[in-house]
Amino acid sequence: VTSLAEDLQERLTASPFHASMGLEVVQAERGTVVLAFRALPEHLNLQGLVHGGVLATLADTAMGLAVRTSVEPGHRHVTIQLGMQYVRPASPGPIRALGRVIRTGSQIAHADAEITDDALRVLARAQGTYSVARDRTN
Amino acid sequence: VTSLAEDLQERLTASPFHASMGLEVVQAERGTVVLAFRALPEHLNLQGLVHGGVLATLADTAMGLAVRTSVEPGHRHVTIQLGMQYVRPASPGPIRALGRVIRTGSQIAHADAEITDDALRVLARAQGTYSVARDRTN
Amino acid sequence: VTSLAEDLQERLTASPFHASMGLEVVQAERGTVVLAFRALPEHLNLQGLVHGGVLATLADTAMGLAVRTSVEPGHRHVTIQLGMQYVRPASPGPIRALGRVIRTGSQIAHADAEITDDALRVLARAQGTYSVARDRTN
Amino acid sequence: VTSLAEDLQERLTASPFHASMGLEVVQAERGTVVLAFRALPEHLNLQGLVHGGVLATLADTAMGLAVRTSVEPGHRHVTIQLGMQYVRPASPGPIRALGRVIRTGSQIAHADAEITDDALRVLARAQGTYSVARDRTN
Repeated sequence: VTSLAEDLQERLTASPFHASMGLEVVQAERGTVVLAFRALPEHLNLQGLVHGGVLATLADTAMGLAVRTSVEPGHRHVTIQLGMQYVRPASPGPIRALGRVIRTGSQIAHADAEITDDALRVLARAQGTYSVARDRTN
Repeated sequence: VTSLAEDLQERLTASPFHASMGLEVVQAERGTVVLAFRALPEHLNLQGLVHGGVLATLADTAMGLAVRTSVEPGHRHVTIQLGMQYVRPASPGPIRALGRVIRTGSQIAHADAEITDDALRVLARAQGTYSVARDRTN
Repeated sequence: VTSLAEDLQERLTASPFHASMGLEVVQAERGTVVLAFRALPEHLNLQGLVHGGVLATLADTAMGLAVRTSVEPGHRHVTIQLGMQYVRPASPGPIRALGRVIRTGSQIAHADAEITDDALRVLARAQGTYSVARDRTN
Repeated sequence: VTSLAEDLQERLTASPFHASMGLEVVQAERGTVVLAFRALPEHLNLQGLVHGGVLATLADTAMGLAVRTSVEPGHRHVTIQLGMQYVRPASPGPIRALGRVIRTGSQIAHADAEITDDALRVLARAQGTYSVARDRTN
Protein backbone atom coordinates (compact mmCIF):
# COMPACT_ATOMS: atom_id res chain seq x y z
CA VAL A 1 0.00 0.00 0.00
CA THR A 2 1.43 3.36 -0.98
CA SER A 3 0.27 6.61 0.51
CA LEU A 4 -1.08 9.52 -1.50
CA ALA A 5 2.19 11.41 -0.87
CA GLU A 6 4.20 8.49 -2.26
CA ASP A 7 1.99 8.31 -5.34
CA LEU A 8 2.51 11.98 -6.04
CA GLN A 9 6.25 11.71 -5.39
CA GLU A 10 6.50 8.93 -7.98
CA ARG A 11 4.67 11.11 -10.41
CA LEU A 12 7.06 14.01 -9.80
CA THR A 13 10.10 11.80 -10.13
CA ALA A 14 8.86 10.54 -13.50
CA SER A 15 8.72 14.11 -14.83
CA PRO A 16 12.13 15.23 -16.15
CA PHE A 17 11.55 18.85 -15.20
CA HIS A 18 10.47 18.13 -11.63
CA ALA A 19 13.16 15.53 -11.11
CA SER A 20 15.81 18.04 -12.17
CA MET A 21 14.48 20.51 -9.61
CA GLY A 22 14.54 18.00 -6.77
CA LEU A 23 10.99 18.58 -5.55
CA GLU A 24 9.87 16.48 -2.59
CA VAL A 25 6.26 15.78 -1.57
CA VAL A 26 6.27 16.13 2.22
CA GLN A 27 2.55 16.01 2.83
CA ALA A 28 -0.56 15.20 0.82
CA GLU A 29 -4.21 14.79 1.51
CA ARG A 30 -7.27 15.30 -0.63
CA GLY A 31 -7.10 18.92 -1.86
CA THR A 32 -3.83 19.88 -0.16
CA VAL A 33 -0.20 19.19 -1.04
CA VAL A 34 3.03 20.46 0.53
CA LEU A 35 6.26 20.43 -1.46
CA ALA A 36 9.80 20.95 -0.16
CA PHE A 37 12.56 22.39 -2.30
CA ARG A 38 16.14 23.46 -1.72
CA ALA A 39 17.36 26.28 -3.94
CA LEU A 40 20.69 25.45 -5.59
CA PRO A 41 23.07 27.89 -7.32
CA GLU A 42 21.43 27.18 -10.69
CA HIS A 43 18.12 28.52 -9.36
CA LEU A 44 19.50 31.94 -8.47
CA ASN A 45 19.46 35.14 -10.46
CA LEU A 46 22.18 37.78 -10.72
CA GLN A 47 21.41 39.16 -7.26
CA GLY A 48 21.79 35.72 -5.69
CA LEU A 49 18.06 35.38 -5.09
CA VAL A 50 15.76 32.56 -6.17
CA HIS A 51 14.35 33.39 -9.61
CA GLY A 52 10.65 34.21 -9.77
CA GLY A 53 10.21 31.55 -12.43
CA VAL A 54 11.40 28.91 -9.99
CA LEU A 55 8.82 30.06 -7.44
CA ALA A 56 6.15 30.04 -10.15
CA THR A 57 7.12 26.46 -10.96
CA LEU A 58 6.88 25.46 -7.30
CA ALA A 59 3.48 27.08 -6.91
CA ASP A 60 2.06 25.62 -10.10
CA THR A 61 3.34 22.16 -9.22
CA ALA A 62 1.94 22.23 -5.67
CA MET A 63 -1.45 23.47 -6.91
CA GLY A 64 -1.50 21.03 -9.82
CA LEU A 65 -0.85 18.07 -7.52
CA ALA A 66 -3.52 19.32 -5.12
CA VAL A 67 -5.96 19.50 -8.02
CA ARG A 68 -4.93 15.99 -9.03
CA THR A 69 -5.93 14.67 -5.60
CA SER A 70 -9.38 16.22 -6.04
CA VAL A 71 -10.40 15.13 -9.54
CA GLU A 72 -12.00 11.79 -10.33
CA PRO A 73 -9.81 8.97 -11.65
CA GLY A 74 -9.39 9.04 -15.41
CA HIS A 75 -9.35 12.82 -15.56
CA ARG A 76 -6.45 15.12 -16.30
CA HIS A 77 -5.86 18.77 -15.49
CA VAL A 78 -4.05 21.49 -17.39
CA THR A 79 -2.96 24.89 -16.06
CA ILE A 80 -4.81 27.64 -17.89
CA GLN A 81 -3.87 30.59 -15.72
CA LEU A 82 -1.36 31.38 -13.00
CA GLY A 83 -1.14 34.55 -10.92
CA MET A 84 1.94 35.12 -8.76
CA GLN A 85 2.47 37.74 -6.06
CA TYR A 86 6.12 38.11 -5.07
CA VAL A 87 6.02 39.25 -1.47
CA ARG A 88 9.65 38.99 -0.26
CA PRO A 89 13.02 38.28 -1.88
CA ALA A 90 13.73 34.54 -1.67
CA SER A 91 17.20 33.64 -0.40
CA PRO A 92 18.85 30.25 -1.00
CA GLY A 93 17.82 27.57 1.50
CA PRO A 94 14.82 25.38 2.27
CA ILE A 95 11.54 26.53 0.74
CA ARG A 96 8.06 25.05 1.06
CA ALA A 97 5.00 25.39 -1.13
CA LEU A 98 1.51 24.66 0.16
CA GLY A 99 -0.97 24.07 -2.67
CA ARG A 100 -4.65 24.03 -1.88
CA VAL A 101 -7.77 23.45 -3.94
CA ILE A 102 -10.45 26.11 -3.55
CA ARG A 103 -13.05 24.31 -5.63
CA THR A 104 -13.06 21.61 -8.27
CA GLY A 105 -15.98 21.70 -10.67
CA SER A 106 -16.78 19.51 -13.64
CA GLN A 107 -14.66 21.60 -16.03
CA ILE A 108 -12.64 24.03 -13.90
CA ALA A 109 -10.60 23.83 -10.71
CA HIS A 110 -9.46 26.88 -8.72
CA ALA A 111 -6.48 26.62 -6.38
CA ASP A 112 -4.09 28.80 -4.44
CA ALA A 113 -0.59 28.38 -3.06
CA GLU A 114 1.65 29.94 -0.45
CA ILE A 115 5.43 29.71 -0.59
CA THR A 116 7.31 30.14 2.67
CA ASP A 117 10.90 30.05 3.88
CA ASP A 118 12.38 28.21 6.85
CA ALA A 119 11.14 30.89 9.25
CA LEU A 120 7.60 30.51 7.79
CA ARG A 121 7.75 33.97 6.24
CA VAL A 122 5.62 34.28 3.10
CA LEU A 123 7.81 34.63 0.00
CA ALA A 124 5.13 34.38 -2.65
CA ARG A 125 1.47 33.64 -3.12
CA ALA A 126 -0.31 32.19 -6.11
CA GLN A 127 -3.68 31.77 -7.75
CA GLY A 128 -4.07 28.93 -10.23
CA THR A 129 -6.88 28.00 -12.57
CA TYR A 130 -7.02 24.53 -14.12
CA SER A 131 -9.04 22.94 -16.87
CA VAL A 132 -10.29 19.49 -15.95
CA ALA A 133 -11.26 16.94 -18.60
CA ARG A 134 -11.69 13.25 -19.08
CA ASP A 135 -8.36 11.79 -20.17
CA ARG A 136 -8.83 10.70 -23.77
CA THR A 137 -5.94 8.27 -23.49
CA ASN A 138 -7.56 6.38 -20.61
CA VAL B 1 30.87 49.33 -28.84
CA THR B 2 28.39 46.71 -27.69
CA SER B 3 24.76 46.73 -28.66
CA LEU B 4 21.89 46.74 -26.21
CA ALA B 5 21.18 43.09 -27.11
CA GLU B 6 24.79 42.14 -26.31
CA ASP B 7 24.63 43.95 -22.98
CA LEU B 8 21.49 42.06 -22.02
CA GLN B 9 22.96 38.77 -23.22
CA GLU B 10 26.01 39.27 -20.99
CA ARG B 11 23.67 39.94 -18.10
CA LEU B 12 21.72 36.74 -18.76
CA THR B 13 24.89 34.69 -19.10
CA ALA B 14 26.10 35.95 -15.72
CA SER B 15 22.93 34.65 -14.05
CA PRO B 16 23.26 30.97 -13.12
CA PHE B 17 19.58 30.30 -13.63
CA HIS B 18 19.36 31.90 -17.06
CA ALA B 19 22.63 30.40 -18.21
CA SER B 20 21.36 26.93 -17.30
CA MET B 21 18.26 27.52 -19.39
CA GLY B 22 20.21 28.66 -22.44
CA LEU B 23 18.26 31.85 -23.08
CA GLU B 24 19.40 33.97 -26.03
CA VAL B 25 18.64 37.65 -26.59
CA VAL B 26 17.79 37.89 -30.27
CA GLN B 27 16.52 41.45 -30.36
CA ALA B 28 16.47 44.42 -28.01
CA GLU B 29 15.50 48.03 -28.21
CA ARG B 30 14.25 50.46 -25.61
CA GLY B 31 11.15 48.88 -24.09
CA THR B 32 11.14 45.66 -26.15
CA VAL B 33 13.18 42.46 -25.86
CA VAL B 34 12.88 39.17 -27.74
CA LEU B 35 14.33 35.98 -26.25
CA ALA B 36 14.89 32.65 -27.97
CA PHE B 37 14.81 29.34 -26.12
CA ARG B 38 14.97 25.71 -27.10
CA ALA B 39 13.10 23.34 -24.81
CA LEU B 40 15.25 20.38 -23.74
CA PRO B 41 14.08 17.12 -22.13
CA GLU B 42 14.63 18.56 -18.65
CA HIS B 43 12.05 21.28 -19.37
CA LEU B 44 9.26 18.85 -20.10
CA ASN B 45 6.56 17.52 -17.82
CA LEU B 46 5.10 14.02 -17.71
CA GLN B 47 3.05 14.59 -20.86
CA GLY B 48 6.15 15.64 -22.80
CA LEU B 49 5.07 19.28 -22.88
CA VAL B 50 7.04 22.32 -21.76
CA HIS B 51 6.27 22.98 -18.10
CA GLY B 52 4.26 26.10 -17.34
CA GLY B 53 6.96 27.21 -14.90
CA VAL B 54 9.47 27.30 -17.75
CA LEU B 55 7.14 29.52 -19.77
CA ALA B 56 6.62 31.75 -16.73
CA THR B 57 10.40 32.07 -16.43
CA LEU B 58 10.71 33.00 -20.09
CA ALA B 59 7.97 35.61 -19.83
CA ASP B 60 9.28 37.13 -16.62
CA THR B 61 12.81 37.30 -18.02
CA ALA B 62 11.75 38.92 -21.31
CA MET B 63 9.61 41.49 -19.47
CA GLY B 64 12.28 42.15 -16.84
CA LEU B 65 14.91 42.83 -19.50
CA ALA B 66 12.48 45.09 -21.36
CA VAL B 67 11.87 47.00 -18.13
CA ARG B 68 15.63 47.22 -17.63
CA THR B 69 16.02 48.98 -20.99
CA SER B 70 13.44 51.54 -19.92
CA VAL B 71 14.60 52.55 -16.43
CA GLU B 72 17.25 55.16 -15.75
CA PRO B 73 20.81 54.01 -15.04
CA GLY B 74 21.44 53.23 -11.38
CA HIS B 75 17.97 51.81 -10.89
CA ARG B 76 16.96 48.22 -10.34
CA HIS B 77 13.65 46.43 -10.86
CA VAL B 78 12.03 43.58 -8.98
CA THR B 79 9.08 41.46 -10.12
CA ILE B 80 6.15 42.01 -7.77
CA GLN B 81 3.42 40.28 -9.77
CA LEU B 82 3.18 37.94 -12.73
CA GLY B 83 0.01 36.78 -14.48
CA MET B 84 0.25 33.94 -16.99
CA GLN B 85 -2.38 32.77 -19.47
CA TYR B 86 -1.61 29.34 -20.93
CA VAL B 87 -3.22 29.37 -24.35
CA ARG B 88 -1.88 26.23 -26.09
CA PRO B 89 0.18 23.20 -25.04
CA ALA B 90 3.87 23.93 -25.71
CA SER B 91 5.72 21.17 -27.55
CA PRO B 92 9.51 20.81 -27.54
CA GLY B 93 11.29 22.97 -30.11
CA PRO B 94 12.17 26.61 -30.65
CA ILE B 95 10.18 29.09 -28.57
CA ARG B 96 10.31 32.88 -28.53
CA ALA B 97 9.24 35.38 -25.90
CA LEU B 98 8.52 39.01 -26.74
CA GLY B 99 8.61 41.24 -23.65
CA ARG B 100 7.25 44.76 -23.93
CA VAL B 101 7.01 47.66 -21.50
CA ILE B 102 3.55 49.21 -21.25
CA ARG B 103 4.61 52.07 -19.01
CA THR B 104 7.49 52.79 -16.66
CA GLY B 105 6.72 55.23 -13.87
CA SER B 106 8.91 56.48 -11.05
CA GLN B 107 8.05 53.50 -8.80
CA ILE B 108 6.20 50.97 -10.95
CA ALA B 109 6.64 49.46 -14.40
CA HIS B 110 3.93 47.49 -16.21
CA ALA B 111 4.86 45.06 -18.98
CA ASP B 112 3.39 42.25 -21.02
CA ALA B 113 4.80 39.29 -22.91
CA GLU B 114 3.77 36.92 -25.65
CA ILE B 115 5.29 33.48 -26.07
CA THR B 116 5.10 31.91 -29.51
CA ASP B 117 6.25 28.73 -31.21
CA ASP B 118 8.05 28.31 -34.52
CA ALA B 119 4.80 28.71 -36.44
CA LEU B 120 4.12 32.00 -34.55
CA ARG B 121 1.19 30.46 -32.70
CA VAL B 122 0.61 32.01 -29.28
CA LEU B 123 1.48 29.54 -26.52
CA ALA B 124 1.16 31.86 -23.54
CA ARG B 125 0.64 35.49 -22.63
CA ALA B 126 1.80 37.35 -19.57
CA GLN B 127 1.26 40.48 -17.52
CA GLY B 128 4.12 41.62 -15.29
CA THR B 129 4.33 44.33 -12.69
CA TYR B 130 7.72 45.55 -11.48
CA SER B 131 8.88 47.73 -8.63
CA VAL B 132 11.52 50.23 -9.71
CA ALA B 133 13.93 51.79 -7.20
CA ARG B 134 17.28 53.48 -7.03
CA ASP B 135 19.94 50.81 -6.58
CA ARG B 136 21.31 51.29 -3.07
CA THR B 137 24.49 49.48 -4.00
CA ASN B 138 25.31 51.97 -6.77
CA VAL C 1 -31.19 42.52 -40.52
CA THR C 2 -29.30 43.64 -37.44
CA SER C 3 -25.56 43.92 -37.25
CA LEU C 4 -23.39 42.09 -34.74
CA ALA C 5 -22.84 45.37 -32.86
CA GLU C 6 -26.61 45.94 -32.61
CA ASP C 7 -27.15 42.42 -31.32
CA LEU C 8 -24.56 42.91 -28.60
CA GLN C 9 -25.97 46.34 -27.74
CA GLU C 10 -29.43 44.80 -27.23
CA ARG C 11 -27.87 42.22 -24.99
CA LEU C 12 -26.14 44.89 -22.90
CA THR C 13 -29.30 46.97 -22.64
CA ALA C 14 -31.22 43.95 -21.33
CA SER C 15 -28.72 43.56 -18.48
CA PRO C 16 -29.64 45.80 -15.53
CA PHE C 17 -26.03 46.28 -14.51
CA HIS C 18 -24.78 47.24 -17.94
CA ALA C 19 -27.78 49.44 -18.66
CA SER C 20 -27.12 51.36 -15.45
CA MET C 21 -23.53 51.97 -16.54
CA GLY C 22 -24.51 53.25 -19.98
CA LEU C 23 -22.15 51.03 -21.98
CA GLU C 24 -22.29 51.46 -25.75
CA VAL C 25 -21.05 48.93 -28.33
CA VAL C 26 -19.24 51.04 -30.92
CA GLN C 27 -17.65 48.25 -32.94
CA ALA C 28 -17.94 44.48 -33.16
CA GLU C 29 -16.60 41.78 -35.37
CA ARG C 30 -15.84 38.14 -34.75
CA GLY C 31 -13.40 38.06 -31.81
CA THR C 32 -13.18 41.83 -31.23
CA VAL C 33 -15.52 44.26 -29.49
CA VAL C 34 -15.07 47.96 -28.65
CA LEU C 35 -17.16 49.56 -25.91
CA ALA C 36 -17.56 53.27 -25.15
CA PHE C 37 -18.29 54.57 -21.68
CA ARG C 38 -18.53 57.99 -20.10
CA ALA C 39 -17.56 58.15 -16.44
CA LEU C 40 -20.18 59.92 -14.33
CA PRO C 41 -19.76 61.26 -10.77
CA GLU C 42 -21.09 57.98 -9.32
CA HIS C 43 -18.16 56.11 -10.92
CA LEU C 44 -15.50 58.18 -9.16
CA ASN C 45 -13.62 57.45 -5.97
CA LEU C 46 -12.60 59.89 -3.26
CA GLN C 47 -9.76 61.29 -5.36
CA GLY C 48 -12.13 62.05 -8.23
CA LEU C 49 -10.73 59.22 -10.37
CA VAL C 50 -12.62 56.38 -12.02
CA HIS C 51 -12.78 53.44 -9.60
CA GLY C 52 -10.73 50.38 -10.53
CA GLY C 53 -13.84 48.23 -10.19
CA VAL C 54 -15.52 50.24 -12.95
CA LEU C 55 -12.54 49.62 -15.23
CA ALA C 56 -12.62 45.92 -14.32
CA THR C 57 -16.29 45.85 -15.29
CA LEU C 58 -15.56 47.53 -18.61
CA ALA C 59 -12.73 45.11 -19.38
CA ASP C 60 -14.70 42.01 -18.40
CA THR C 61 -17.71 43.13 -20.43
CA ALA C 62 -15.67 43.90 -23.56
CA MET C 63 -13.84 40.57 -23.33
CA GLY C 64 -17.02 38.63 -22.54
CA LEU C 65 -18.80 40.07 -25.57
CA ALA C 66 -15.76 39.31 -27.75
CA VAL C 67 -15.83 35.73 -26.48
CA ARG C 68 -19.54 35.61 -27.23
CA THR C 69 -18.90 36.47 -30.88
CA SER C 70 -16.44 33.58 -31.10
CA VAL C 71 -18.35 30.68 -29.53
CA GLU C 72 -20.81 28.50 -31.39
CA PRO C 73 -24.55 29.26 -31.08
CA GLY C 74 -26.16 27.58 -28.09
CA HIS C 75 -23.09 28.00 -25.93
CA ARG C 76 -22.61 30.30 -22.97
CA HIS C 77 -19.46 31.66 -21.35
CA VAL C 78 -18.67 32.45 -17.74
CA THR C 79 -15.75 34.51 -16.43
CA ILE C 80 -13.48 32.32 -14.34
CA GLN C 81 -10.51 34.64 -13.97
CA LEU C 82 -9.74 38.31 -14.53
CA GLY C 83 -6.36 40.01 -14.23
CA MET C 84 -6.22 43.83 -14.28
CA GLN C 85 -3.16 46.04 -14.63
CA TYR C 86 -3.85 49.66 -13.69
CA VAL C 87 -1.42 51.68 -15.76
CA ARG C 88 -2.53 55.31 -15.34
CA PRO C 89 -5.09 57.14 -13.18
CA ALA C 90 -8.38 57.38 -15.08
CA SER C 91 -9.96 60.84 -15.12
CA PRO C 92 -13.64 61.46 -15.86
CA GLY C 93 -14.47 61.65 -19.56
CA PRO C 94 -14.84 59.30 -22.52
CA ILE C 95 -13.22 55.90 -22.08
CA ARG C 96 -12.99 53.00 -24.54
CA ALA C 97 -12.41 49.31 -23.95
CA LEU C 98 -11.14 47.03 -26.70
CA GLY C 99 -11.81 43.35 -25.93
CA ARG C 100 -10.11 40.72 -28.04
CA VAL C 101 -10.21 36.93 -28.08
CA ILE C 102 -6.80 35.26 -28.01
CA ARG C 103 -8.12 31.75 -28.49
CA THR C 104 -11.43 29.96 -28.02
CA GLY C 105 -11.19 26.24 -27.38
CA SER C 106 -13.89 23.69 -26.70
CA GLN C 107 -13.93 24.41 -22.96
CA ILE C 108 -11.84 27.55 -22.39
CA ALA C 109 -11.51 30.96 -24.02
CA HIS C 110 -8.63 33.36 -23.38
CA ALA C 111 -9.05 37.08 -24.05
CA ASP C 112 -7.38 40.39 -23.33
CA ALA C 113 -8.53 43.99 -23.16
CA GLU C 114 -7.07 47.45 -23.35
CA ILE C 115 -8.77 50.49 -21.84
CA THR C 116 -7.83 53.88 -23.25
CA ASP C 117 -8.81 57.50 -22.74
CA ASP C 118 -9.72 60.11 -25.32
CA ALA C 119 -6.05 60.71 -26.14
CA LEU C 120 -5.58 56.96 -26.70
CA ARG C 121 -3.37 56.65 -23.62
CA VAL C 122 -3.57 53.21 -22.00
CA LEU C 123 -5.36 53.40 -18.63
CA ALA C 124 -5.60 49.69 -17.89
CA ARG C 125 -4.99 46.30 -19.43
CA ALA C 126 -6.72 43.03 -18.73
CA GLN C 127 -6.41 39.28 -19.11
CA GLY C 128 -9.62 37.27 -19.00
CA THR C 129 -10.24 33.54 -18.90
CA TYR C 130 -13.68 32.16 -19.69
CA SER C 131 -15.33 28.78 -19.33
CA VAL C 132 -17.35 27.81 -22.39
CA ALA C 133 -20.16 25.26 -22.21
CA ARG C 134 -23.26 24.19 -24.03
CA ASP C 135 -26.18 26.19 -22.67
CA ARG C 136 -28.34 23.72 -20.76
CA THR C 137 -31.39 25.95 -21.14
CA ASN C 138 -31.17 25.87 -24.95
CA VAL D 1 -13.63 58.69 19.89
CA THR D 2 -14.42 56.90 16.63
CA SER D 3 -13.38 53.36 15.92
CA LEU D 4 -11.28 52.30 12.94
CA ALA D 5 -14.39 50.78 11.34
CA GLU D 6 -16.27 54.08 11.71
CA ASP D 7 -13.37 55.99 10.17
CA LEU D 8 -13.34 53.69 7.16
CA GLN D 9 -17.13 53.84 6.84
CA GLU D 10 -16.97 57.65 6.69
CA ARG D 11 -14.36 57.37 4.00
CA LEU D 12 -16.54 55.02 1.95
CA THR D 13 -19.60 57.20 2.37
CA ALA D 14 -17.66 60.21 1.06
CA SER D 15 -16.84 58.33 -2.15
CA PRO D 16 -19.66 58.65 -4.71
CA PHE D 17 -18.98 55.24 -6.19
CA HIS D 18 -18.96 53.39 -2.89
CA ALA D 19 -21.93 55.29 -1.53
CA SER D 20 -23.95 54.31 -4.60
CA MET D 21 -23.10 50.66 -3.99
CA GLY D 22 -24.14 50.74 -0.34
CA LEU D 23 -20.98 49.16 1.07
CA GLU D 24 -20.85 48.75 4.84
CA VAL D 25 -17.72 48.28 6.96
CA VAL D 26 -18.68 45.60 9.45
CA GLN D 27 -15.25 44.93 10.93
CA ALA D 28 -11.81 46.54 10.80
CA GLU D 29 -8.53 46.05 12.53
CA ARG D 30 -4.98 46.75 11.44
CA GLY D 31 -4.50 44.81 8.20
CA THR D 32 -7.99 43.29 7.96
CA VAL D 33 -11.31 44.74 6.82
CA VAL D 34 -14.70 43.06 6.32
CA LEU D 35 -17.31 44.69 4.06
CA ALA D 36 -20.99 43.79 3.76
CA PHE D 37 -22.95 44.34 0.56
CA ARG D 38 -26.42 43.48 -0.62
CA ALA D 39 -26.76 42.89 -4.34
CA LEU D 40 -29.62 44.89 -5.87
CA PRO D 41 -31.24 44.38 -9.29
CA GLU D 42 -28.87 46.92 -10.85
CA HIS D 43 -25.89 44.73 -9.88
CA LEU D 44 -27.13 41.70 -11.80
CA ASN D 45 -26.25 40.56 -15.29
CA LEU D 46 -28.55 38.97 -17.86
CA GLN D 47 -28.56 35.62 -16.06
CA GLY D 48 -29.66 37.26 -12.81
CA LEU D 49 -26.25 36.76 -11.21
CA VAL D 50 -24.04 39.39 -9.59
CA HIS D 51 -21.72 40.83 -12.23
CA GLY D 52 -18.04 39.96 -11.93
CA GLY D 53 -17.19 43.66 -12.03
CA VAL D 54 -19.24 44.20 -8.87
CA LEU D 55 -17.29 41.45 -7.11
CA ALA D 56 -14.01 42.96 -8.36
CA THR D 57 -15.09 46.29 -6.89
CA LEU D 58 -15.91 44.67 -3.54
CA ALA D 59 -12.58 42.86 -3.43
CA ASP D 60 -10.53 45.90 -4.42
CA THR D 61 -12.32 48.08 -1.89
CA ALA D 62 -11.88 45.60 0.98
CA MET D 63 -8.19 45.13 0.16
CA GLY D 64 -7.61 48.86 -0.35
CA LEU D 65 -9.12 49.68 3.04
CA ALA D 66 -7.05 46.94 4.66
CA VAL D 67 -3.94 48.42 3.07
CA ARG D 68 -5.00 51.83 4.34
CA THR D 69 -5.06 50.55 7.92
CA SER D 70 -1.49 49.31 7.49
CA VAL D 71 0.31 52.29 5.93
CA GLU D 72 1.72 55.18 7.91
CA PRO D 73 -0.32 58.38 8.20
CA GLY D 74 0.24 60.80 5.34
CA HIS D 75 0.62 58.02 2.80
CA ARG D 76 -1.76 57.04 0.05
CA HIS D 77 -2.17 53.79 -1.86
CA VAL D 78 -3.15 53.11 -5.46
CA THR D 79 -4.24 49.79 -6.97
CA ILE D 80 -1.71 48.70 -9.57
CA GLN D 81 -2.89 45.13 -10.13
CA LEU D 82 -5.94 43.04 -9.33
CA GLY D 83 -6.38 39.32 -9.94
CA MET D 84 -9.85 37.79 -9.54
CA GLN D 85 -10.81 34.11 -9.40
CA TYR D 86 -14.52 33.53 -9.88
CA VAL D 87 -15.26 30.35 -7.99
CA ARG D 88 -19.08 30.11 -7.88
CA PRO D 89 -21.97 32.02 -9.46
CA ALA D 90 -23.06 34.80 -7.09
CA SER D 91 -26.81 35.00 -6.49
CA PRO D 92 -28.58 38.10 -5.16
CA GLY D 93 -28.48 38.44 -1.37
CA PRO D 94 -26.02 39.34 1.35
CA ILE D 95 -22.36 39.12 0.36
CA ARG D 96 -19.24 39.71 2.45
CA ALA D 97 -15.70 40.59 1.42
CA LEU D 98 -12.75 39.97 3.73
CA GLY D 99 -9.68 42.01 2.70
CA ARG D 100 -6.35 41.17 4.27
CA VAL D 101 -2.87 42.64 3.95
CA ILE D 102 -0.15 40.08 3.22
CA ARG D 103 2.72 42.55 3.55
CA THR D 104 3.15 46.29 3.38
CA GLY D 105 6.60 47.47 2.34
CA SER D 106 7.93 50.98 1.81
CA GLN D 107 6.70 51.12 -1.80
CA ILE D 108 4.45 48.10 -2.34
CA ALA D 109 1.62 46.41 -0.44
CA HIS D 110 0.30 42.92 -1.25
CA ALA D 111 -3.18 41.90 -0.17
CA ASP D 112 -5.77 39.23 -0.80
CA ALA D 113 -9.54 39.00 -0.43
CA GLU D 114 -12.21 36.36 -0.13
CA ILE D 115 -15.83 36.98 -1.07
CA THR D 116 -18.44 34.74 0.53
CA ASP D 117 -22.20 34.38 0.52
CA ASP D 118 -24.57 34.02 3.45
CA ALA D 119 -23.74 30.32 3.80
CA LEU D 120 -20.00 31.20 3.90
CA ARG D 121 -19.40 29.58 0.52
CA VAL D 122 -16.53 31.17 -1.38
CA LEU D 123 -17.81 33.09 -4.41
CA ALA D 124 -14.56 34.72 -5.47
CA ARG D 125 -10.97 35.24 -4.39
CA ALA D 126 -8.65 38.11 -5.16
CA GLN D 127 -5.01 39.15 -5.20
CA GLY D 128 -4.29 42.87 -5.05
CA THR D 129 -1.06 44.80 -5.42
CA TYR D 130 -0.87 48.41 -4.29
CA SER D 131 1.65 51.20 -4.73
CA VAL D 132 2.26 53.12 -1.51
CA ALA D 133 3.64 56.66 -1.55
CA ARG D 134 3.83 59.75 0.60
CA ASP D 135 0.75 61.86 -0.11
CA ARG D 136 2.01 64.96 -1.90
CA THR D 137 -1.06 66.93 -0.85
CA ASN D 138 -0.37 66.40 2.87
